[in-house]
Amino acid sequence: MNWPQDSKVLALCGGVGGAKLALGLTHVLAAEQLTIAVNTADDFEHFGLLVCPDLDTVTYTLAGLNNTETGWGRGDESWHCLESLEQLGADTWFRLGDRDLAIHLTRRALLDQGRTLSEATASITEHLGIAHNVVPMSDAAVRTIIDTDEGELEFQQYFVREQCQPAVRGIAFSGASDAPLSAGLRNALEDPQLGAILICPSNPFVSVAPILALAGIKESICRRTAAVIAVSPIVARKAIKGPTAKMMHDLGLELSALGVYQFYADLLDGFVIDEQDRGLIDEFPEPHRIHCCNTVMEDLGDRISLAQECLQFAASIEALE
Amino acid sequence: MNWPQDSKVLALCGGVGGAKLALGLTHVLAAEQLTIAVNTADDFEHFGLLVCPDLDTVTYTLAGLNNTETGWGRGDESWHCLESLEQLGADTWFRLGDRDLAIHLTRRALLDQGRTLSEATASITEHLGIAHNVVPMSDAAVRTIIDTDEGELEFQQYFVREQCQPAVRGIAFSGASDAPLSAGLRNALEDPQLGAILICPSNPFVSVAPILALAGIKESICRRTAAVIAVSPIVARKAIKGPTAKMMHDLGLELSALGVYQFYADLLDGFVIDEQDRGLIDEFPEPHRIHCCNTVMEDLGDRISLAQECLQFAASIEALE
Repeated sequence: MNWPQDSKVLALCGGVGGAKLALGLTHVLAAEQLTIAVNTADDFEHFGLLVCPDLDTVTYTLAGLNNTETGWGRGDESWHCLESLEQLGADTWFRLGDRDLAIHLTRRALLDQGRTLSEATASITEHLGIAHNVVPMSDAAVRTIIDTDEGELEFQQYFVREQCQPAVRGIAFSGASDAPLSAGLRNALEDPQLGAILICPSNPFVSVAPILALAGIKESICRRTAAVIAVSPIVARKAIKGPTAKMMHDLGLELSALGVYQFYADLLDGFVIDEQDRGLIDEFPEPHRIHCCNTVMEDLGDRISLAQECLQFAASIEALE
Repeated sequence: MNWPQDSKVLALCGGVGGAKLALGLTHVLAAEQLTIAVNTADDFEHFGLLVCPDLDTVTYTLAGLNNTETGWGRGDESWHCLESLEQLGADTWFRLGDRDLAIHLTRRALLDQGRTLSEATASITEHLGIAHNVVPMSDAAVRTIIDTDEGELEFQQYFVREQCQPAVRGIAFSGASDAPLSAGLRNALEDPQLGAILICPSNPFVSVAPILALAGIKESICRRTAAVIAVSPIVARKAIKGPTAKMMHDLGLELSALGVYQFYADLLDGFVIDEQDRGLIDEFPEPHRIHCCNTVMEDLGDRISLAQECLQFAASIEALE
């Protein structure tokens, strides 16, 4: 791979799918070359703790502590606290594992000491031996509200408690327009050496859109000459994981990689789709801006390969401009 | 035992020793006959949760969930969260077990919903099948501050983190003089059928004294004709458990059951000491107000026997007046 050592990369990332590509990127870029900015709009307060599902999925994935079967939470987990919560009549629809609880307790303690979410995240990732920079999109609270046929739901209520059953009519990001970018995200965006902005194959509507809803970020991205590349989370008209496909259906969007591209539209310089969707290339308005490769990341090799493909594609797109 | 069925009992109680006698009382009194009012001055905020060591020890003991070896926490406990907290660099001097965490999380959720500590305690004890009334001494925050030769320490810092090593120079109960009695404690004190107030064999200085420091409670106790009985936590010049003996030494008090009696002094109508201290009886100012029996509670039978002894003694003292 020919990505220059002095060129930096900003990855915008949600949970599971995004974390896989983020892990690949950490294997091909030095710590100082990469910033992973993570969606925090599906964070929520539970038992007085701040649960940050996407931040924690990225953290566990980079630290090698993630549960590879479920995609969320920690591997080697136990559920004794949850069993006891049930006995006490407490809410147990959000499954907090015993080991996972530690990250929420630690974050609560750090926030209570007056640290920002960025500082708490830095402390946690450092303790877990993560060298690369993982930052929340903002230190201010932004919350995804899903407007459904059963009324408005907070994201985790929709996603976990209601298992994505209600039909989605709209999605809003409460607080986003007033939320300043975190220092880590802002610094990455303003870095003169920024060579690429990579939108990971996360859910466009609830994982990436909240980041893009932050005040001024779209303008900042467009001002930069860095290549903006997204990877489609839709492969062969299906979502690899999670409710992306169902949301596209509910929202009346075309259920294909092209539908995702149209959603990001004016922001992208290039778009990565899966080999299985090669036949779609000519349907895109600028086919030379579409790159086809394997995007289904089953093992670490796949994650590293996709990271390399994305960077090489970004370098070639930059040369195009 | 001849305790009348229409006569009620109020037990004032700290952690381990108090919980044992409280358990005995639940076996000899009907649910509506007994109120167990528990010290909350060693409660503390940890990871944003409210940890209530004495309330929880009583709760676990009455529910049969307590750890019979340590005296605190739950039996059948695991420590996965604590291991992970360590890995994340969080404070682990206060050992929170996985199952124990559930009670703190549940209480946080209930308090965040606007319930009082009394209401949260009622919900928790009800879910655990505890029929008798367990109430915090107050719903307001009262905090024990230990003045030591190493400066002022919050109780759990002194007790758990510093392992009671610093010498005690004084003890204060921050907030006590403004803290209203909980409704449960107030109702028990005002109940016309109140026949006995039992001070359990808990630490007089940090478990019982905070209850007695609440505004107006001593006057309320003295106004009642109910017999006020205490059980000595000091047996043969040693504490059964915990730092009582060390505190008596540090505070320059006589290290014996007599020293405990002198501490409670004007409040008591009768005092229960252990068989091993029978030789001390004549040193008490009113030996006929001293009752000797086995107070070392090794098994459930001991707990029930001591409860019966205390009630019978209270009935005989009442007859004296």
